[in-house]
Amino acid sequence: MEPVSAGSVARQIANGVKGVVMPIGGAEERSPHGTILKEFVERCGGEDARILIVPTASSESDTGDDYAEIFTRIGARSAAVAPIDDRESANSDELIAQLAASTGVFVTGGDQSRLNKLVVGTRFAEALRDRNGAGMTVAGTSAGASILGAHMMAGGMSEVPPHKGLVEMVAGFGLLQDIIIDQHFSQRGRVARLLVTFAGNPGLIAFGIDENTAVIIGGDGMAKVIGVGSVTVVDGRNVYSDYHDLDDGDILTITGAHIHVLAPGRIFDLNRRIVLHLAQEQAPLAGTR
Amino acid sequence: MEPVSAGSVARQIANGVKGVVMPIGGAEERSPHGTILKEFVERCGGEDARILIVPTASSESDTGDDYAEIFTRIGARSAAVAPIDDRESANSDELIAQLAASTGVFVTGGDQSRLNKLVVGTRFAEALRDRNGAGMTVAGTSAGASILGAHMMAGGMSEVPPHKGLVEMVAGFGLLQDIIIDQHFSQRGRVARLLVTFAGNPGLIAFGIDENTAVIIGGDGMAKVIGVGSVTVVDGRNVYSDYHDLDDGDILTITGAHIHVLAPGRIFDLNRRIVLHLAQEQAPLAGTR
Repeated sequence: MEPVSAGSVARQIANGVKGVVMPIGGAEERSPHGTILKEFVERCGGEDARILIVPTASSESDTGDDYAEIFTRIGARSAAVAPIDDRESANSDELIAQLAASTGVFVTGGDQSRLNKLVVGTRFAEALRDRNGAGMTVAGTSAGASILGAHMMAGGMSEVPPHKGLVEMVAGFGLLQDIIIDQHFSQRGRVARLLVTFAGNPGLIAFGIDENTAVIIGGDGMAKVIGVGSVTVVDGRNVYSDYHDLDDGDILTITGAHIHVLAPGRIFDLNRRIVLHLAQEQAPLAGTR
Repeated sequence: MEPVSAGSVARQIANGVKGVVMPIGGAEERSPHGTILKEFVERCGGEDARILIVPTASSESDTGDDYAEIFTRIGARSAAVAPIDDRESANSDELIAQLAASTGVFVTGGDQSRLNKLVVGTRFAEALRDRNGAGMTVAGTSAGASILGAHMMAGGMSEVPPHKGLVEMVAGFGLLQDIIIDQHFSQRGRVARLLVTFAGNPGLIAFGIDENTAVIIGGDGMAKVIGVGSVTVVDGRNVYSDYHDLDDGDILTITGAHIHVLAPGRIFDLNRRIVLHLAQEQAPLAGTR
């Protein structure tokens, strides 16, 4: 989990080791330090980093250029904005070539349904998964974080009891299997959304990421928290509910979710589903497997 | 858990069976149906109910009288307001006599620190615990619900990461051991508060009660949800954290909390810490004990 050099990124890609996926909880600091964005640039190769920005979720035309300015200012060799305005552009040879020339991809925040509508299932999304599978780092913030998983939550007001129909699942980029990403987590109090998602989809694991906080999820299944807030991990492996007996709008009963909160620096082991190096952790949870 | 007649209340008190404790999540419906308040009146003896209202948390002078009007309108024989404005009145012979003549006590919402300051540790609080221990029903709403436990949370903004010092514990009435009550739960998104409380106090169990929703906690350890929202149960028995290694303000790492959500009608068994009658529940959780 140490920062990797450009050389080791090249080696990883050559060796076919799955690359880092780095969801950010939104509102990441951009200056003066921008710790999370710097970590991303380092993982894309540092001064050799050639970053491709996917601004498609944003309704503001300068979002992509703003990130490009930041990434080059904090050390990347280059940063380009992917011109994805429709599915045609997401399927174009030009974009695939642009991705092939990049060492990392960053997905901005905004409206996640635009990412679902315009990018999921395109040649670009497929090539992105291939490149990440071969070692390239992919990061996203806010809506751009949620899209990184195989599924993401759509809808779901936060201040109501957990009822059937509160949340729908839609397809994401599929860079993370069985993982749901929620963002702005402590700020918007969305534990009910996660529990409802589990009710209909037991076995998933959710990362609720605070603002200005990120998770570096390695191809080895180690997920490290960086930034200033915390990451709430909700493990749905033992979840059981009455979801399938209920109608839309009915309040759900959900049992057996496990919840963990990780401070910056902590590592969650996705293989064993435990917090590393926290004493007494392994024994009680081991009994539940 | 069926509604009890006045006769059975008298028998319970005579037999020394611990009475029901009924925390309400706030904003309970008062008319036309007032299901939760009607259930309370029934459990105090129905048409024989003589209810004593503790309005001390409220800053509004007519809160007690308003509840008295409701309770008599929905079927109680009488409802009186306990005149507790200072610790002297909470220690008075008159108040103890008034409690002795009552078949149930209702604690209103408001500022829970007033209940802690003016009532906890007084003769009234002691007599209330004795009467509940002998079978009398005690209910409270909002701040009046939180005070019913041995401890309650003080402070704790809801929209920040779980850090040490977020929440302090102060003494409550002690009618429920090892149980923390939080109210307005889905409405105010406070799971972080509960987890921080567990970090410093493992082994507790928390009920996060939604508005217009209540838990009927029997002396037998069965806790039944009534009303329109849900109750979130957070079980801290297997919690482990780095609480004691940190300074105030540091973000905590907390692992091993179990979380359940109960719809109205569901029963949580506090002895076994499981949701009753939800298939596959007992097996996985049994392994963690």
